[in-house]
Formats: sequence, C-alpha cells, structure tokens
Amino acid sequence: MSLKITKPTLLLDKQKCFRNIENMVRKANKHNVRLRPHFKTHQSAEVGQWFKDFGVSHITVSSVDMAKYFAENGWENILIAFPINPLQFDEIEQIPESVNLELLLSDAGILPHLSTLKRKVGIFIEFNAGYGRTGFSIDQFDEIKKCLDNIVFQSNLTFSGFYTHNGHTYSTQSIAEINQIHIESIRLFRELRAGFRDEFPQMKIVMGDTPSCSTMDFFQYIDEIGPGNFVFYDLTQQKIGSCEFDQVAVAMACPVVAKFPEKGEVVIYGGGVHFSKDILEKNGEPIFGLMVEQTGKNWGQPIEGAYIKGLSQEHGKVVLPKELFDNTEIGDILYFLPVHSCLTANLMREYLTLEGEVVGRM
Amino acid sequence: MSLKITKPTLLLDKQKCFRNIENMVRKANKHNVRLRPHFKTHQSAEVGQWFKDFGVSHITVSSVDMAKYFAENGWENILIAFPINPLQFDEIEQIPESVNLELLLSDAGILPHLSTLKRKVGIFIEFNAGYGRTGFSIDQFDEIKKCLDNIVFQSNLTFSGFYTHNGHTYSTQSIAEINQIHIESIRLFRELRAGFRDEFPQMKIVMGDTPSCSTMDFFQYIDEIGPGNFVFYDLTQQKIGSCEFDQVAVAMACPVVAKFPEKGEVVIYGGGVHFSKDILEKNGEPIFGLMVEQTGKNWGQPIEGAYIKGLSQEHGKVVLPKELFDNTEIGDILYFLPVHSCLTANLMREYLTLEGEVVGRM
Repeated sequence: MSLKITKPTLLLDKQKCFRNIENMVRKANKHNVRLRPHFKTHQSAEVGQWFKDFGVSHITVSSVDMAKYFAENGWENILIAFPINPLQFDEIEQIPESVNLELLLSDAGILPHLSTLKRKVGIFIEFNAGYGRTGFSIDQFDEIKKCLDNIVFQSNLTFSGFYTHNGHTYSTQSIAEINQIHIESIRLFRELRAGFRDEFPQMKIVMGDTPSCSTMDFFQYIDEIGPGNFVFYDLTQQKIGSCEFDQVAVAMACPVVAKFPEKGEVVIYGGGVHFSKDILEKNGEPIFGLMVEQTGKNWGQPIEGAYIKGLSQEHGKVVLPKELFDNTEIGDILYFLPVHSCLTANLMREYLTLEGEVVGRM
Repeated sequence: MSLKITKPTLLLDKQKCFRNIENMVRKANKHNVRLRPHFKTHQSAEVGQWFKDFGVSHITVSSVDMAKYFAENGWENILIAFPINPLQFDEIEQIPESVNLELLLSDAGILPHLSTLKRKVGIFIEFNAGYGRTGFSIDQFDEIKKCLDNIVFQSNLTFSGFYTHNGHTYSTQSIAEINQIHIESIRLFRELRAGFRDEFPQMKIVMGDTPSCSTMDFFQYIDEIGPGNFVFYDLTQQKIGSCEFDQVAVAMACPVVAKFPEKGEVVIYGGGVHFSKDILEKNGEPIFGLMVEQTGKNWGQPIEGAYIKGLSQEHGKVVLPKELFDNTEIGDILYFLPVHSCLTANLMREYLTLEGEVVGRM
C-alpha cells in the first residue's frame, strides 16, 4: 500500500532518523560529553520524544516560543541558544520554575536589562571561536569578566559556562577544513577553561554545529555538544561531508503537474513556500533539491541529472534525464532531498512518516 | 502609545494597503478590465474583505487549500491559477457548487484525468506569452484546439478563456523592458482572440503580474488583470519600478539583540524563518531588507547605508551608519522593508496593523 500524497509533503524516514540520533548519542557517550541536541531543526514534541527514548535530557532551542513549547512537552533542561532578547522577559518569566532554563549572553549591553529579570536562570556566555556572528572573542577576557561579575552578584542568575556555534564549518569544502576550525576552537576552549575553571569549577563548555559533531573525533575541553541538523541531515551536510545521502531522513514528495518535452523538464507542485529558497551550487548552477529513486514507500540514492533548477512561490522546475522524463506523467509523485532541512521543516509544519503517521510540530 | 512588539513582527499599514487596492481598482475601471487580484500574497480573509469593500468580486489563488479557505470566507468566484493537480480532485469536489470555481489547464497531459472530475468548473487555458514556466505558446494552436475539443465535449466543463502570468517582468531592469514584454503579450493576445473569439465569444483573456499591471497604461485585448503583490509591494517591486518606497505597505519590526562596534553592525532577532531567503543585489552584495526611518508608529523612507546583509535561521546581521549605530541599543526595535512580501507574509502567518490589531490568515 502506498502513501496517500496529494500535495507537497515532507516525508520522514523514522528508521534513518533513529539511526542519526543513535549515532550522535553513541559518539557523545564515547567521548564522555553530554549531547544537548538543538531542536530548532525538527520543532516537534514527537521527534523530541525519540531523543528522550535514547536518554537525552538536555536540549537547545532558538526562541522563547520554542522553549515554552518544549517545556509544555515535558523537557526540564532547556537552553535558549539565541542572544537574550530583553523584550521577552515577561514570556521568559512565565516558563515554569521547574524548568532549568538557560539563556545566552552574547553582548555586555544586555547586563542592565538582565538586572530586571526575576526568574532563576542559568547564563551561558556566548564565545566566538571564529564564526563571528555573535559572542565574545578570546581577546575580550575583560568583557567576559565584567559579565561574570554581574552574574555572580545577581542571586537569581548562575553562570553555566560558555556556548559556541561554529557556523563557519557550513562554508567549508572538506573535512580537513572542518578539522582546522575544530582544532582552533579546542585550543581556544583550553584557554577559556584555564582562565575561568578555578573560579567556576562547574562551568560547561558547549559547542555545537552539525559538521564538526558529525565528522570530528576529538572533543577535549568540551563538556557538551549541541548539533541540530544531524537528526535529518540534508544536501548541504552531504556536500560538506557530514553525512552520506542515505543518512538524509527527510524528503519532499511533490506531484508532477506539467511536462515540457522540448526542455526535458517537468513542473512540480512544490515551490519556495515548501522547500525554502536556500540553494546549493553545482557547476555554477543553483540547485534547490536532488531527486531520489523511489523504492516502495522509501527512497534511495539521488538520480544522476535529476534536480530542481528553479522555484517560484508554488512551482518547482525539475530537470530530468531523457528516459526518466519519458516515463514521468502528470499526477506522478517525485521525491527530492532538500537543500536545508531546517528551513524546509519550518515551512512544511508537519511530517508524514513512511508508515503513514502524521508527526506534528509547534 | 507605541505598538507592543517583542519579537519579529510583520507590520501592516492599512492606509497604504487601501491606497494600493484603490489605485489598482481605479486603473482597472479606467481601462474597463476586471480586477481579479491574486490572493496568494496576503492569504488573509480580512485583507480580502478590504478588496470586497472596493467592489472586487473575482479572485485568483494558487492552491486548492487557498480556494477552500476563501470559499469558506464568502468568495464565490475563484480561479486556482496553478496547473491542475489531478491528485486533489477529491478536495476540489468538496468546494461547494455555489462557488464558481475555475481551474488552469497548463498541459494537455491533464485531459485524461480531467474526464474523471465531476464538479462543474470553468477552465482557463494557460497561455505562455514568453515567461516559459508553464502553458501553451502561440505556435501550439493545435494543442490548444485539442484541449478545447475535450472541454466542450465534457458537460461539467466550460471554457473560461486564457490566463497568462508574465513572470519574466520580475527580472527586468527598467519600465522600457516591461513595456516591451507587455506589447509583445498584447500582440499575442490579439492573435489568440482572433483565433478563438468566434467560437467562444464569452472567453476572457486574463493577464496578471504586478510589474505590468502597476506600470503599464494600455490593456487592449485583455479582459481581466490578476496582479497580487501590489497589495503590499516590496523592495523587489520598488527596484523594478512598480512602486515607490512609500507604497510598500508591510514592514518587519525586529528587536536588536547584539552590537558589534568594530564592524558597525547589529544583530537582530529576525532571520530566514521570518524574512525568507529571497535576496536583492546591490553593488554585487546581497541585501535581505532595507531599514526604514520610524515616524511614530509608522515608517518613512529607507535610511542610506542601513540594511540586512545576512540571515541565518533566527539571526539577521544589520549594517548601520556610524551615528545610527551609536544611537541604537539592545532592546530597540528596527523596521525593515522586505525583499519579497509574499514569502515574508507566508512565513509570518499574521500581521499587526499600525492601530495594533492582529490580522490573521489561513
């Protein structure tokens, strides 16, 4: 029996997803670090439960809304890994005290605001190990100390440690480059630890980006890893080298609605409001998704020469090799691996498992 | 009293929106064409009501779901301007017969499927006047006739006319280029009309894209115009020349969460899941939004040198001129015009008017 698909649908292969979770749990255990997965990728209580079943107790999220949602769904250790937004203190105060909530301090300019927060929270200081989006650099020890002075003198605040997102691994072209970023980070973490461990023996050093956590095999001076995307992976991660195609646990299923024999292209129902506009470049051409073989309800490897070359709001233009084009009809469903699963999942708002279950999200 | 904004919020200036609607209604009346606005931009029953208040009775949508939503909200003349998806016939059948529903035939391959549709529907044939995404070209008269033969012999189907979306006006750099596309379309519409008007005197020729409808002032051989984006406009339309900055009726309001004095940049809470990843290029650099002045609750012109240079999932990196940077603090709200209002509205899922009302959508 096949899945009932009538419009763009985000398929979720639970078995691949379980394996992705299990692999990262094993890796964390092997290196004696805590896995604190980032839940912004799936945003789903049900997918969250799968992590819990593997023993995960601490999570990372990227917004106050997401923290509220996962708190309501039974999570008790939540880090909001986004610079503290002083305009949302009312909402933060409403998260039950039973939740061990941790916030991210990325700029000393937040300190005057922080003094008005009443709730007990842990504070991670964001450390910039080279990505440069937000956080303090290694040469800002004085700024960091100023933050710590404020934290220790405010009784509802506890210093949790340092949090780093090495987003620059996303623009690497090889494992060697990821390795270089990772080594440099660890060197910096060692310095951080040397500088603050005496005064704060409980502090944790958390780092998390899917490329490093997937490919590296040394985590000295790190207490927790917080990758997110690995639960699903995607074409971007495959290109970087974080995963193989057969580890990508989500695929978009889209109906064919028109054919263009002269161009060897079909048009699918599936556009920017389904896939997102994130692109991958291949030989200088943009790619919005790679078509994969269908094997029963499941999918296999990408098909050479079959990919999404353009997206408008609801339409996708798909290039197909000649024989496949000839065998494709209006009303057929084609499967595609997404370029960036986080943004695709954010747009799609629910998943359909290969067993036919709908998995909801916030 | 200022608006209560604590996180990324899509502001809607109703007065500008009313003026945008009114201008297009006037233009349609002046040229004696029917305005059949595309509702995929706003996806909101309330915004739809504003059109109704200006006398609009016929609308365009881009999905069966959208047709259902607007049918439930009292619209009785709905064209789904997306190639007919045979997998959604069950859903199409469920739209009440009281709704005059029209579908878009873009490929003769749909004909065998169409014979299984029971509901009374009007059929527009998609005409490709040069954009080339979907539809029949002028040299496919035989294909068109084949479709018409099928339509006239199926009693529940009526031939409504030809529908054209000139999406290639979006990549123009000047009004002169839009003009060229528009003249060529009208020449083709004249041929179409000459070819089919005798047999189908009731048939309508519909064309709709915001650049042509906003900038052109001749609509011979056209019966209806179906633009969508003009209700809000955006930076893309301003760049094309469809509107002035002060006609853009939506703006994103985002809190500042971090500052980088050495770079003259701030980080806002507002990322790819809020703005979308559509970009505009300026001097070879990508721009994801332009910052505008705040004038009370409202906004004014773009501020020279203040723009969003990068977006990750929840973060935006904003470049600010020196003085503005110095006067900007964490917790401030900045306003930005979006690059593509349709995709931003699709992500944000609700609007906040300058009067503080929340306007929902499907």
